[in-house]
Amino acid sequence: MTRIVLHEVGPRDGLQMEKQAVPTDKKESWLRGLMDSGVDIIQVGSFVHPEKVPQMADTDELFRRLQAGKKSPAVLSGLVLNEKGVERGLACGVEMFCMGASASDTHSRKNAGVGTDEAVPRIVAAARAATAAGKRVQVSVQSAFGCGFEGPIPEPRVLGMVRAYLDAGLRNISLADTAGHAHPALVERLFGAILRMDPGVELACHFHNTYGLGMANMFAAMRAGVGSFETSIAGLGGCPFTKVAAGNVATEDFVQALQLQGLRPEVDLERLIALARDVVAHFGREMQGFVYKTGPIKAKERA
Amino acid sequence: MTRIVLHEVGPRDGLQMEKQAVPTDKKESWLRGLMDSGVDIIQVGSFVHPEKVPQMADTDELFRRLQAGKKSPAVLSGLVLNEKGVERGLACGVEMFCMGASASDTHSRKNAGVGTDEAVPRIVAAARAATAAGKRVQVSVQSAFGCGFEGPIPEPRVLGMVRAYLDAGLRNISLADTAGHAHPALVERLFGAILRMDPGVELACHFHNTYGLGMANMFAAMRAGVGSFETSIAGLGGCPFTKVAAGNVATEDFVQALQLQGLRPEVDLERLIALARDVVAHFGREMQGFVYKTGPIKAKERA
Repeated sequence: MTRIVLHEVGPRDGLQMEKQAVPTDKKESWLRGLMDSGVDIIQVGSFVHPEKVPQMADTDELFRRLQAGKKSPAVLSGLVLNEKGVERGLACGVEMFCMGASASDTHSRKNAGVGTDEAVPRIVAAARAATAAGKRVQVSVQSAFGCGFEGPIPEPRVLGMVRAYLDAGLRNISLADTAGHAHPALVERLFGAILRMDPGVELACHFHNTYGLGMANMFAAMRAGVGSFETSIAGLGGCPFTKVAAGNVATEDFVQALQLQGLRPEVDLERLIALARDVVAHFGREMQGFVYKTGPIKAKERA
Repeated sequence: MTRIVLHEVGPRDGLQMEKQAVPTDKKESWLRGLMDSGVDIIQVGSFVHPEKVPQMADTDELFRRLQAGKKSPAVLSGLVLNEKGVERGLACGVEMFCMGASASDTHSRKNAGVGTDEAVPRIVAAARAATAAGKRVQVSVQSAFGCGFEGPIPEPRVLGMVRAYLDAGLRNISLADTAGHAHPALVERLFGAILRMDPGVELACHFHNTYGLGMANMFAAMRAGVGSFETSIAGLGGCPFTKVAAGNVATEDFVQALQLQGLRPEVDLERLIALARDVVAHFGREMQGFVYKTGPIKAKERA
């Protein structure tokens, strides 16, 4: 079995949704905690215009702080939208660049300002720039499993984008369930189709837990051969008091699930739970995670 | 593929956990709504001593009300602990008797007053009495996937109980994850082992969503060949403000998940969501379900 790679995205995907920006020192303390927990990759933030997403205005500063004397083996990733983002990221110490285009034309126009057909070459150009600089790169297809604006996304459309990435030599590919419409059968089908296109591709997944299927979709992805899983501490990003709760599966919930199956025993679950509780305390509201509420299943109780 | 059977257990497993008893009229209105929604089996209540579980004191009365002029094809099930419970259930119109013994000796002593070895023959006797009366019967192994008191439960112990049930001619068998410790690999292994013992057995599952694995475990059970799934409306039974939130997966979340995969399209999801919202409004606190908060994925948006 492939080693399961844990990619923490709460500091980016979670915090960008919060109305109030989290102080940089607080973010830094959470990020350092994550780096010490044994999680493999941590998405520190995104490189977007600070007027558009003020919550991410300190991304460059955070990378500089975390890179100063860095000893942790955790890979620090950043989300970029274009080549300009890659330049910013290279200047402050991004180790892995994540970027993507949406399979939904409507979502792409709202999010990236251009339709899918224009967004894909832009992403490919940014990915090539980051690759040329010797950095790790992950390219994604957003809204791969359906879209709140457009409804179902034809599978050939998703696979066509994957083909464009593969043809550009990009072999670390993520499918993102932006709207939360994915279900296990679709997850197995789409990832299976990609592996038939290129059995050597590195696959990643990003599921929003909007309708309660996040964990089931992750296990479906694991069966399909996906190796890298994006989660967020405490389930950050979802809010029980908004209409659509759209966080990822909580990192600590997924880590406990893996450990119940004998996987990734070295990851520090207790530390992740303490971190999740600190995040929850900071925001003062319950989040989607389960294990930070219940505490872990004790080692002696595990089947 | 086997038809997926939906067994609603909220009115029993959920309401028995609530501090305040729900008025009988309110329960009746929820039960009638469930009967009209297209769910296959509904667990109306349990036959326990009213001093022990006062929330279930009106179970006989509810069965009598629902049986008067009943037209719905929904099967009304009741939980019993022994032959006396079967007598009570036969007198008021129970159509399907559910009963079980715990694979954890400690849990069995706390719950049934006797250890597993004494509990199993008691359950077999009750099951035979109900079968002899021409009723449907489902026998379960509680704490089949681990126990908060005893920790891991040896798999041969669970399979030994299943063997005792099979030898008694009982072929509708449920495994219950009382503590919420189940994980997909264990679910597939245990149910797979039972199907190898008797490929014709009817299998059911009951997962508590304590650690966020309920839905993933249900999909694992489906793959393993389980046909009947116990869920609770709104995820009733869990409480976000208690230390261990131990509800089942929400019925409406599971129904939407099935419908995304083309299964059970005739079940009235909108009605289930309205019911879940009425349950939540009654208790005045958020529950574990997702879809009652977000609304359904619209038909035109489904992949």
